[in-house]
Amino acid sequence: MRHSHKFARKYVYTFSEGDASMREILGGKGANLAQMVRLGLPVPFGITVTTEACNRYYEDGRQISDEIREQIFWYFGKLEEVVRKKLGDPSNPLLVSVRSGARASMPGMMDTILNLGLNDEVAAGMVASAESPDFERFVYDSYRRFIQMFADVVMGIDKKRFEVIIDDVKAEKGVKLDIELDTDDMKELVRRFKAFYKEQKGEDFPSDPKEQLIEAVTAVFRSWDNDRANVYRRMNNIPYSWGTAVNIQMMVFGNRNERSGSGVAFTRDPATGEKALFGEYLINAQGEDVVAGIRTPSPIEDLKKDMPEIYDEFARYAQTLENYYKDMQDMEFTIEDGKLYMLQTRNGKRTASAAIKVAVDLVDEGMITEDEAVLRVEPQQLDSLLHPQFDAKALKKAEEIGQGLAASPGAACGKVVFTAEDAKEWAARGEKVVLVRLETSPEDIEGMTAAQGILTARGGMTSHAAVVARGMGSCCVSGCGAIQMHEEEKYFVLAGHTIREGDFISIDGSTGKVYLGQVPSVSAMISGDFGRFMAWADERRALEVRTNADNPRDAAQALEFGAQGIGLTRTEHMFFEGERIKAIREMIVAKTTEARKTALAKLLPFQQSDFEGIYEVMGELPVTIRLLDPPLHEFLPQEDADIQEIADELGMTFDELKQVVASLHEFNPMMGHRGCRLAVSYPEIAEMQTTAIISAAINVSKRTGNRIVPEIMIPLVGEVKELKFVKNTVTATADRLIAEAGIKMRYEVGTMIEIPRAALTADEIAKEADFFSFGTNDLTQMTFGFSRDDAGKFLGAYYDNKIYESDPFARLDQTGVGKLVEMAARLGRQTRPDISLGICGEHGGEPTSVEFCHNVGLDYVSCSPFRVPIARLAAAQANIKNPRK
Amino acid sequence: MRHSHKFARKYVYTFSEGDASMREILGGKGANLAQMVRLGLPVPFGITVTTEACNRYYEDGRQISDEIREQIFWYFGKLEEVVRKKLGDPSNPLLVSVRSGARASMPGMMDTILNLGLNDEVAAGMVASAESPDFERFVYDSYRRFIQMFADVVMGIDKKRFEVIIDDVKAEKGVKLDIELDTDDMKELVRRFKAFYKEQKGEDFPSDPKEQLIEAVTAVFRSWDNDRANVYRRMNNIPYSWGTAVNIQMMVFGNRNERSGSGVAFTRDPATGEKALFGEYLINAQGEDVVAGIRTPSPIEDLKKDMPEIYDEFARYAQTLENYYKDMQDMEFTIEDGKLYMLQTRNGKRTASAAIKVAVDLVDEGMITEDEAVLRVEPQQLDSLLHPQFDAKALKKAEEIGQGLAASPGAACGKVVFTAEDAKEWAARGEKVVLVRLETSPEDIEGMTAAQGILTARGGMTSHAAVVARGMGSCCVSGCGAIQMHEEEKYFVLAGHTIREGDFISIDGSTGKVYLGQVPSVSAMISGDFGRFMAWADERRALEVRTNADNPRDAAQALEFGAQGIGLTRTEHMFFEGERIKAIREMIVAKTTEARKTALAKLLPFQQSDFEGIYEVMGELPVTIRLLDPPLHEFLPQEDADIQEIADELGMTFDELKQVVASLHEFNPMMGHRGCRLAVSYPEIAEMQTTAIISAAINVSKRTGNRIVPEIMIPLVGEVKELKFVKNTVTATADRLIAEAGIKMRYEVGTMIEIPRAALTADEIAKEADFFSFGTNDLTQMTFGFSRDDAGKFLGAYYDNKIYESDPFARLDQTGVGKLVEMAARLGRQTRPDISLGICGEHGGEPTSVEFCHNVGLDYVSCSPFRVPIARLAAAQANIKNPRK
Repeated sequence: MRHSHKFARKYVYTFSEGDASMREILGGKGANLAQMVRLGLPVPFGITVTTEACNRYYEDGRQISDEIREQIFWYFGKLEEVVRKKLGDPSNPLLVSVRSGARASMPGMMDTILNLGLNDEVAAGMVASAESPDFERFVYDSYRRFIQMFADVVMGIDKKRFEVIIDDVKAEKGVKLDIELDTDDMKELVRRFKAFYKEQKGEDFPSDPKEQLIEAVTAVFRSWDNDRANVYRRMNNIPYSWGTAVNIQMMVFGNRNERSGSGVAFTRDPATGEKALFGEYLINAQGEDVVAGIRTPSPIEDLKKDMPEIYDEFARYAQTLENYYKDMQDMEFTIEDGKLYMLQTRNGKRTASAAIKVAVDLVDEGMITEDEAVLRVEPQQLDSLLHPQFDAKALKKAEEIGQGLAASPGAACGKVVFTAEDAKEWAARGEKVVLVRLETSPEDIEGMTAAQGILTARGGMTSHAAVVARGMGSCCVSGCGAIQMHEEEKYFVLAGHTIREGDFISIDGSTGKVYLGQVPSVSAMISGDFGRFMAWADERRALEVRTNADNPRDAAQALEFGAQGIGLTRTEHMFFEGERIKAIREMIVAKTTEARKTALAKLLPFQQSDFEGIYEVMGELPVTIRLLDPPLHEFLPQEDADIQEIADELGMTFDELKQVVASLHEFNPMMGHRGCRLAVSYPEIAEMQTTAIISAAINVSKRTGNRIVPEIMIPLVGEVKELKFVKNTVTATADRLIAEAGIKMRYEVGTMIEIPRAALTADEIAKEADFFSFGTNDLTQMTFGFSRDDAGKFLGAYYDNKIYESDPFARLDQTGVGKLVEMAARLGRQTRPDISLGICGEHGGEPTSVEFCHNVGLDYVSCSPFRVPIARLAAAQANIKNPRK
Repeated sequence: MRHSHKFARKYVYTFSEGDASMREILGGKGANLAQMVRLGLPVPFGITVTTEACNRYYEDGRQISDEIREQIFWYFGKLEEVVRKKLGDPSNPLLVSVRSGARASMPGMMDTILNLGLNDEVAAGMVASAESPDFERFVYDSYRRFIQMFADVVMGIDKKRFEVIIDDVKAEKGVKLDIELDTDDMKELVRRFKAFYKEQKGEDFPSDPKEQLIEAVTAVFRSWDNDRANVYRRMNNIPYSWGTAVNIQMMVFGNRNERSGSGVAFTRDPATGEKALFGEYLINAQGEDVVAGIRTPSPIEDLKKDMPEIYDEFARYAQTLENYYKDMQDMEFTIEDGKLYMLQTRNGKRTASAAIKVAVDLVDEGMITEDEAVLRVEPQQLDSLLHPQFDAKALKKAEEIGQGLAASPGAACGKVVFTAEDAKEWAARGEKVVLVRLETSPEDIEGMTAAQGILTARGGMTSHAAVVARGMGSCCVSGCGAIQMHEEEKYFVLAGHTIREGDFISIDGSTGKVYLGQVPSVSAMISGDFGRFMAWADERRALEVRTNADNPRDAAQALEFGAQGIGLTRTEHMFFEGERIKAIREMIVAKTTEARKTALAKLLPFQQSDFEGIYEVMGELPVTIRLLDPPLHEFLPQEDADIQEIADELGMTFDELKQVVASLHEFNPMMGHRGCRLAVSYPEIAEMQTTAIISAAINVSKRTGNRIVPEIMIPLVGEVKELKFVKNTVTATADRLIAEAGIKMRYEVGTMIEIPRAALTADEIAKEADFFSFGTNDLTQMTFGFSRDDAGKFLGAYYDNKIYESDPFARLDQTGVGKLVEMAARLGRQTRPDISLGICGEHGGEPTSVEFCHNVGLDYVSCSPFRVPIARLAAAQANIKNPRK
């Protein structure tokens, strides 16, 4: 009878039953282990409990059902037959590792238990069949590690509390290093660990290996719902419904003896993309020791000297895997007593520049097509390429105080903080910080995200800090061993300098160097590979990519990043400086249309010259300028002291101005007197702004000979007659100016679609609009019925309860808001087939949202300058996946 | 050649070309004039310029095009041929009236010019062919009236300024009454009027009758867009796009001599519906004199004595018209020198009770079917039937100080104001007012709407005040001649009492009596005809009608009005009294879940007993109870003094409570932490409320034996997982209570659809909802993106500019919001075919919105108790027009 027929629904697979295509049910780790078996690589035998079992666990009220329990032990029995060892059999015991493995890699998130199956009898049995005198120490070292991991992972007893016991034993013995503890010390540790366990939990440490196994599987399932996992998933858009698989695998021991070891390696350099085996290993160590960054490992090249055949064998496997997966692999291996075992392979995480180099090289090596290459790079990652690097001249003068590993590229400068909490808090109040830690751990994730960069004293290129920083595209220098760290006292000493909390340092993740104080930085240089890669992307995309820019500087930056126009210029940002704010306040307090026009006339030259600057930078590329949007009270002071001051400036009494402020107060400013509603009440504002736009375009086109087609955008429209009303003011003004100038100039008048009613009646609205620009920030607020400013108070509970899994303001809600966008696009085109459709909300630079915009047929996305390359790549990937006809 | 072939597009019709079916292009007045011609009634000849010409006028930039001008004169020429008179021909002049006539009746809105065609030569010519010595005075009286009306209507010179000139002439002559002015005085008036006109306009009064004619037509078109017309249309839901027609008709003169006169009459009594000619007339007067209420006319019965043949002839025509139109007619007639002319007929405006009596009687008379009867009554009108009447006992003790005409039924009590502006202002700040005027005019409309009732010193049953009040269903006593009015000084004297602004009076529009001070009122008694009529309506409707009621008193009132259940009980309204508000504040300031639960436990008995009261009233009818909806800060004080007081009460420091208040502050409370978001943050609130609901249902069902199926409604849902989360709390609590009670009880859990995203994802949401209740108040706010509290600041400009023609909060916006409702209904049924669908927003009692709800297939509407009969009738009409399968 075949296994798969024994059970109505299959929840467990042996490694030999699966392959790489089955990651949905086996998880990434399980599917790749199965694939390695299939490719003939030496993989310790094992079984995978599926992600569906995990989902069942939650559906069944956080319980492993009898059905699944039965399958686990049935398949485990198969495993015992194959390896001819038996769980809990002292004469021939099977020890296993239990590891999580979700569909997507979630570094450091899930929990691992090694050496499961040990108890007093098994340990004694193993010693009885000992091969060497050292073996007994190894057995009890493994046993105490197992107790420690099991207690931590399954029972929630912090493993640091066991470290205290180790310290006690070392102190009693008068030694400093773990290695100085002998067999008896290890036995003593096992005794004390079990006693501590009993003290903590009120019951004996479970000696039944079957109970250990089920508890361990349960713990992995449970870990899918812990806080760290939830935060990580939210940050990385991983659905809760995916669940995690559990891999139960025969132990192999890298810590067995000096002919043993564990390592991690990449088929190419994950920082640069260079083609060469790149990795680290530790002799006589378990894999966790390498990754945790507690001991600093040796580079993989050293293995060539230490164990040349093993190195060659590993190099062969690495090539086999890269050829199979056609991508750079990140592999874990263990050598037990001179025999190599492959424990894991996966597509390696890499820096953005490595990602691009690998993709370009794989094309040149004939392994993948250009299409595949374009799909290989996460658009979001490009962010790190575009961020500043230290200014080369400034760097020469900067005082270098240390050297660590160049763990994740980029330059960071900020005030030193020593805890993730501080990093989060300081960043929240606007400080730029560098997080300095002995080593990082998964609890630090949020703090790491908040920091400009991360500096650690311990850990290698594959340490937690390094892996996570690369994933986030942040700058990281790891393993800067010269640091004398005093985390508790909040200072560290390096090269004779005492750096305290709040002091500035600068770190360069591309060189591993640490500098004293603040080093200025410059924009990223964009390399040859980048240019070649982005050219492939540009050839493949159907969406145009524009930028949101309110001034010539941002416009120029965006052009450098490949923007094809401006999708949104917010005119109100120009109103806040000096004379301008005074004039706009005069306009607001004006009691008559005439007085309002007088104040507006003062603003006109400022606006016009701003627009001229933008037109000069943008040449003949399209520029969409939005008419005044915010409610007028935003330009007035709210505090009494400020009201007094401004009243004096405006030549009013305090009471008069206070009265104006009060009259402009709104219960819900978000849904108040703003957007085109201002232009309906005060057409003279639209008239002045149109004058500024058209006059600027006329002047610049006369000066440069460029053919400029101004695009004037009317915000917050909800009804076609409203648009028509404001448009009448705009066209009357524009037509008059163009006629007066005696030239020919085409211009367009369009609208934001940011009110649900505008989307619902887009067929009507399109009658008056040359273009639609989706303002998905407001559209999201109105569609969800919550304001971005207030939602913070309750969204926490929504994330905790899995009601929302991602922030709808960061990532377009395709189900609800997206339905309105799709509807408006369809209705708009129905009325006006050649209508231009774009998006200018913050979603315009977020890859999944860009893909959505492509799929619903928009013409362009517009985003902040630094996100332009991200949008270009996301657009290309969208068109490769779903080509536009 | 037939007329209709002469022009590519026909903009003018002679009366003999039209009929009653053509009101869209001829307007109501024009179509009915044409129909009277067709029925063989004596109608002075005339032509109608169509509503399409009016729309062309606006499209052409407020200009009458040459094409239309040509048609007007061509058809006018036809008219001259028929009547054998000629415009401007002194020897045989044609004088005409120019009157507006829109598709729907707009009483007093549009402008009228009489005696057009007069100039010095024509006047002299008429006098030359004079039939009697009095004729010369008549001619110049007509001439000066024409100048006055033309100057007012066409040139915007207030007619009151001409009255001043009349007063001068009377003073010079030492007389008091117009009638005392002789022929020479009239000539003098013509002279002075023309001089005043020239002084005002800088040019001579137009003597060319053709110019007069075109100017008059233009003025009518222009009047379609004046402020009064715009306000009236908005109040009565008349689209701007309808336009008005213009009727040009040969003059007949009711003021020619003592064998002449003008009158207005109804085929049935418009106040009671009684079948008998009902009307008023004035001997030797023009029609305007009767309607304007300047002289108090005689009842139509007197005509039987004065001119018996004329009366009989008129009574015959009245019957002919009622038979033709199968409805009560409102007719205008003029008698010129012993010959009767019909000038207008239309379906008569009537009180609600008259409308019902007429409809029921017409069925009994075999003239219409029950279906037609149900369609005959404006649902909105029923309102007046249901409003309070004076308490009979209190009335006996009340001091009666005057008697006027019972112009519009109902009872009103309020503070006296003397101007429409004051009525509006006082009402806006919450005062109940009675508007007291010498007579009302169209400018007073908004003030009349704002007042509880209207009392006038002059004017009959068909005066402006009476007609408008009946149309609005407000109470009106008109023509209370004993009043000594001092409008300017803001007091009046009646029966020896001096009543000043702000003093209370009470008026009874059903009896015409005026009382001193405040008289208490009681609910309306519902008559036999009403019951019969509503039974016809109930047999015909498909929609169920429920009520919104938060307490047993409102529930009982609604039952009396025919409600079939409660569609919305708002639980928060119960929280504001005494101990309750204290407990809810304790709940809000609680720092732990335990403390919150303790506070909630104090609220539980109050809520439960409220619900028991409601269940007791409602028997087995459905009752939908909504969980807590408003943001918590609504329950806390905002002012420092109050914060101090409440802090003391709660045993907190000022700073602590101030801190809580500050932490609950929201930028956009409308889009903040409210609705089900509260239950996500604090499930214990939903738990307490569910306990109150289910325990109340259990207790009452045990006590009464009634089968109660509680309906629990979760507000502000935007995402199915959010609903599911709160629902889990509700069902866990309810199931436990039901199990503990050891009974069987079914209950339903549903949701409000009031967030656009809920409507867009209704297919998902329906998976967890037994019912949807559309909360169209919030849905309107979110869909339009403006808050009801703030929109007042800009909606004025929107109405002025015709961007919105009706208030979307009063009348469901079918284009935008309605699209979401329709979509949600369809998607909800798709997932759950038996889902119950209702509406509980304020639109649930508004007739056009009820019709929409019927058409999109909802199961019920829910509205305030007083609107229940309106909804019942509107639902019946909807189902007659568009029967549900």
